Amino acid sequence: MPRYKLLVEYDGAPYVGWQRQTNGLSVQEVIETACEAISGAKVMIRGAGRTDAGVHASGQIAHADFARDWREDRLRDALNAHMRPHTVAILSAERVSDAFDARFSAVRRRYLYRIVNRRAPLTFERGRAWLVKRKLDASAMAEAAMLLLGRHDFSTFRASECQAESPVRTLERLDVDRNGDEILIRAGARSFLHTQVRSMTGSLAQVGAGKWTPADALLALKACDRSRCGPLAPPDGLYLEGVDYDNPYDAQTSAIAAT
Amino acid sequence: MPRYKLLVEYDGAPYVGWQRQTNGLSVQEVIETACEAISGAKVMIRGAGRTDAGVHASGQIAHADFARDWREDRLRDALNAHMRPHTVAILSAERVSDAFDARFSAVRRRYLYRIVNRRAPLTFERGRAWLVKRKLDASAMAEAAMLLLGRHDFSTFRASECQAESPVRTLERLDVDRNGDEILIRAGARSFLHTQVRSMTGSLAQVGAGKWTPADALLALKACDRSRCGPLAPPDGLYLEGVDYDNPYDAQTSAIAAT
Repeated sequence: MPRYKLLVEYDGAPYVGWQRQTNGLSVQEVIETACEAISGAKVMIRGAGRTDAGVHASGQIAHADFARDWREDRLRDALNAHMRPHTVAILSAERVSDAFDARFSAVRRRYLYRIVNRRAPLTFERGRAWLVKRKLDASAMAEAAMLLLGRHDFSTFRASECQAESPVRTLERLDVDRNGDEILIRAGARSFLHTQVRSMTGSLAQVGAGKWTPADALLALKACDRSRCGPLAPPDGLYLEGVDYDNPYDAQTSAIAAT
Repeated sequence: MPRYKLLVEYDGAPYVGWQRQTNGLSVQEVIETACEAISGAKVMIRGAGRTDAGVHASGQIAHADFARDWREDRLRDALNAHMRPHTVAILSAERVSDAFDARFSAVRRRYLYRIVNRRAPLTFERGRAWLVKRKLDASAMAEAAMLLLGRHDFSTFRASECQAESPVRTLERLDVDRNGDEILIRAGARSFLHTQVRSMTGSLAQVGAGKWTPADALLALKACDRSRCGPLAPPDGLYLEGVDYDNPYDAQTSAIAAT
């Protein structure tokens, strides 16, 4: 069964999340339904990141096995045609080795969290950013973010329903930058705990608002206590920006690996 | 009657356009209704650019006269509170001189046209950009754009229903830049004819697709003939980005001018 790596973009607002659920339409179901429509057979896909309800992706990666070979551009176009009018798009499809697994081969997930920091309500960004009306100090947030980097027990920033066996993760990147009215938080790690980025963002916002010092964020981390987390940031501002793979499974070499 | 200059942002998709019309809700009516709600009197506003149905603004300017003085931030917040849940936001309100007129004092309107040039359908940008699936040559478009600069009879790029007395305009800026999958067209002039930016954009897209040479765009201009215009670009991609005023009416000095 030829395997394809799919680069997926979606506005998560209308969906119950990435993963199939009984309580509503998921992004996974939208794509699987299109896969089945073009192949006439049951197709199961696996995504690199199981984004929550309302969370977006500009660079989600999934893999799918088909009964026959497809030209990569034809597969992309056929899936997109069948997903209309959903706000889910396949940006590219690539033939990859059977050893490639979108979830288990991933070595890094990269998330972006967008805060719009202004008094006026959102227009274009409604549902796509977190509106924080109180003035935030992005420099203080960046200072706090630095303190969270590295290998830690992230229990404080972990949803109670998180199914991961260990709360230990290595946070490789957590940058905070202001661009006009927008504050952009970029996080990178091999994997994240459930709601980790939204939990850290909510805590950084406490620092930005002056309610916490940067040192308070470190104390919250060290407490390993969910009750010490800041208010959870809403899903609206969160984007899965990209997923990285080691050679020979990365984007540049997958065509070679498939031969 | 104290006069206020309003900086307005809106997602134009739900509206019949800026200007009040009998066939549906306009941005002007949304703002006037909020002005009347907070002041208890009839308020008429005037905008710098009369954007069409579906056209957006990130920097529209309007002025409004109120019966009493308002603190600028309070006026902004009160109007925004009353415009919910519309996708219209007042970014700022500034006290200005009675001599300031949002429309007639303007010396430059700046528009942005966004094309997303890719095969995959739009997700986040649906209704907010023009999706062109055929690969466009942005360099050829930029070359053609240069030929349209300056003072010309723009009859070719003018809607038949345009009410301007003269078809002569001075196009000060028409830049075309590619940024990944996006092609950004920025246009600036004291004023534009009706649908001029969308008409020019549609014609530049003909050049980008290789159907016209850059010289063909110049010939179309020189023909002064509407039938020589390329297909009209959809309103989705058009944004009124900003409006410029001469001193003492510009943003920096309006507070002084008002004293």
